[in-house]
Amino acid sequence: MRYELFYWPSIQGRGEFVRLALEQAGAEYVDVARESEAAAMGVPALMRWLQNETLATPPYAPPFLKAGDRIIGQTANILMFLGPRHDLAPTDEAGRLWAHQLQLTLADLVAEIHDTHHPIASGLYYADQKPEARRRAAYFRKERLPAFLGYFEGVLERNPRGSGHLVGYTLTYADLSMFQVMMGLRYAFPRAMARLKRELPLLDALCERVSALPRIAAYLASKRRLPFNQQGIFRHYPELDAPPARKAKCGHKRGKS
Amino acid sequence: MRYELFYWPSIQGRGEFVRLALEQAGAEYVDVARESEAAAMGVPALMRWLQNETLATPPYAPPFLKAGDRIIGQTANILMFLGPRHDLAPTDEAGRLWAHQLQLTLADLVAEIHDTHHPIASGLYYADQKPEARRRAAYFRKERLPAFLGYFEGVLERNPRGSGHLVGYTLTYADLSMFQVMMGLRYAFPRAMARLKRELPLLDALCERVSALPRIAAYLASKRRLPFNQQGIFRHYPELDAPPARKAKCGHKRGKS
Repeated sequence: MRYELFYWPSIQGRGEFVRLALEQAGAEYVDVARESEAAAMGVPALMRWLQNETLATPPYAPPFLKAGDRIIGQTANILMFLGPRHDLAPTDEAGRLWAHQLQLTLADLVAEIHDTHHPIASGLYYADQKPEARRRAAYFRKERLPAFLGYFEGVLERNPRGSGHLVGYTLTYADLSMFQVMMGLRYAFPRAMARLKRELPLLDALCERVSALPRIAAYLASKRRLPFNQQGIFRHYPELDAPPARKAKCGHKRGKS
Repeated sequence: MRYELFYWPSIQGRGEFVRLALEQAGAEYVDVARESEAAAMGVPALMRWLQNETLATPPYAPPFLKAGDRIIGQTANILMFLGPRHDLAPTDEAGRLWAHQLQLTLADLVAEIHDTHHPIASGLYYADQKPEARRRAAYFRKERLPAFLGYFEGVLERNPRGSGHLVGYTLTYADLSMFQVMMGLRYAFPRAMARLKRELPLLDALCERVSALPRIAAYLASKRRLPFNQQGIFRHYPELDAPPARKAKCGHKRGKS
């Protein structure tokens, strides 16, 4: 079966978590909104499904996946559908729920990352919410980012299989999504992430391992992989990242002045 | 099996979605953090699990559910676990994914509701982010709230079974969660919700139906149901609600002045 993925054509966004799973699965799929309107695809095709008022199971927003006559929405739900079909999730219920639980926690983190640059409204430009974004991003970097990443590092550490993967012995969609979140964070917050690097050796190793998977490596080098940019979830605004390191001056104590 | 639910003891919060499912299921459960510390329960018991560094599948945050020797985190994931066991989800895969997709969309809405009063940081008091909250809440009321609720009203309308439920013929956990979100919104944004009421007849009817379920009615009337308050997800700050209706003055046009 050829899957049809529907997502905005110019950003990685939440669609990228699905793309990575489809690529690693070697699944046949078409990224509909990136195809030509002349071929009845492109954004108008996405909008037709989104605005189709006869659809019994309408998605609220992209991404959604068409698999035969089924339409499945919500990123984590799509991955839960794909996982067992493409050897990207455990086959037992406990394992499947655990992989999904991690995916939902990643989804929470992704929403918080998005809101660092859009703390007031998705419908407004970044320029219209800059002071609020600075404030939110500062808390995010100091509190939320280390808490979330420390949690996932701990999950890798505690995996009873010691496999270097988040769940069980082998790769799951949760590993692919974790990789994507780490790549995005390094793009968006290079200074904050550099400072956390030493505390996250297992996450680092996971990223290396995922990016070296032949199918993922081929995908990342292809034109199908959109570059990070300033329209997606992960955006690099230097003013939202940690301040540049300053050299300590002689005779100055670091601390409250 | 007696389930153990772990959630903060003084708020409905995300734990309430699980409580409603357990109550409607007639399941035996203990709300651990609300029990006595003398009986080795209370918040310290919750913290012991949350900080247990030997746990192979640690939850990131409450709520989490202990079912035998399994610990399951993430609200929607817990409901997906409970659904098929207690006749609160369809038995076929397509139905299960659809119910879960709706639950995840409700989770997105719940996160946005929370951020109307905490747009900068969960770790700060509301008083420390009031101007930002006013701005975020205004956009939420105008754009997000009608979009989300209009979507769910549409789902009820299009249900091919015409059952008045979100999924298929009968009640699912998604209906219970939808009820909770509507109750919370009416508490938090009474004026905004009153203005939307006419457009949401099917959601209104669903709420009536859920609140009349004998087990839910008994639960809502019991001490187990915590009242809404100003510490949970749904908080009533009049300044974040729609402005009071003003009587039109004679000779004044309503519009831009």
